[in-house]
Formats: sequence, C-alpha cells, structure tokens
Amino acid sequence: MIAATPEPPYVAVLFTAERIVGDDEVYDRTAEELRALAARQPGFLGVESAGATFEITISYWSTDEHARQWKQVAEHLAAQRLGREHWYRHYRVRVAQVRRDYGT
Amino acid sequence: MIAATPEPPYVAVLFTAERIVGDDEVYDRTAEELRALAARQPGFLGVESAGATFEITISYWSTDEHARQWKQVAEHLAAQRLGREHWYRHYRVRVAQVRRDYGT
Repeated sequence: MIAATPEPPYVAVLFTAERIVGDDEVYDRTAEELRALAARQPGFLGVESAGATFEITISYWSTDEHARQWKQVAEHLAAQRLGREHWYRHYRVRVAQVRRDYGT
Repeated sequence: MIAATPEPPYVAVLFTAERIVGDDEVYDRTAEELRALAARQPGFLGVESAGATFEITISYWSTDEHARQWKQVAEHLAAQRLGREHWYRHYRVRVAQVRRDYGT
C-alpha cells in the first residue's frame, strides 16, 4: 500500500478532494482504470490513495516533466472533466519535490 | 477539509501509514490532540487527513525549518513512539517542497 519510491529527489502530485456522494460505480471503475493507466506511464514511481468523501491521492513521478505528461494523457483529461463536473465539490492539486524521506 | 494554503512555495510533510487495527480510542484522541497542537505551532499552514487502515495525512508548513521543529515537539515525539510501537505496521514520511497548485 505504501509506494516503494526510490531515494529522493522525485516529484509528488498531491490531489485532495471533497467528493459529492453518488455515481460511485462509475467513479470506482474510473479510478481503478486510471491507476492501471498511470502505472504504465513513463516516469511513474507509485501511487497512494485513502479516504472516500474526503479523498487524498498522491502519485509519485521521476521528474516534473513526467508528472506534466500524465496530466495530458487523453483518458486522464476525460476523467479530470468528469471530476470537475460531477464528482468533486472542491479539489486541489499540489505539485511538490520530495527532498527527504524516512520510515519503517 | 481542503487546507487553505497560501501561494507556493511552502513545505508539505506526507505521512502515509498502514495501521494495525485496535486501540482506536487512544489513537483517535491522540490524533485529535496532535492536530490541535500542530495548529498552534509556528509556521503551520494546514493539515489534511484521510483513510483508516491505510492513512494519509499531509501537513503544510511555511518552511522546512518549521516542519523540523514540529517533528521535535515533545507530545509529538511521544505520539511518534506510540505509532512505531503500537499503531503502524509500516509508515513513511516524505518531506516535499510544493512548487505549484491549482483547483476549484
């Protein structure tokens, strides 16, 4: 569940969202498909996701350019539009450079 | 729920953990106390948390030095020890510099 990221530095895309409840089947299927698609993109390092009505998803990328490329993948653009129009009351995306990490 | 962070740059501390279920009352009370304590620290910008058995908590800080100070606050050190010894199977902390953000 915890992403097996390499030694920093690398890029983290922090997506946090307040969900509108409903349409959960389409949402869950889309989320699963996007996860599989992201895993095949160049520079993908891992993804972590938690929560339901308040959701946090963090995807990890080798470089900022890889993160930008993923944002522009067609299926991802379509999901972003569905998210803005149907699924999320509010959302925020923050792009960050990971500088150090530790844990067990 | 989404933290009202200022314009980047600022620092994000990404905490992701695989929880051991049990002892939830102490855990929940400690989490609530830490959240209130963090909000009174210098440089605190906000916190977002989601999930249960897999938890993601992101705290936001003005500078890396503020994030380091929070790590050393006594009550927080005590909670970190409880986490390592009782609550978490695995956890990872990643410290990152937020460079840009967008959303609605």
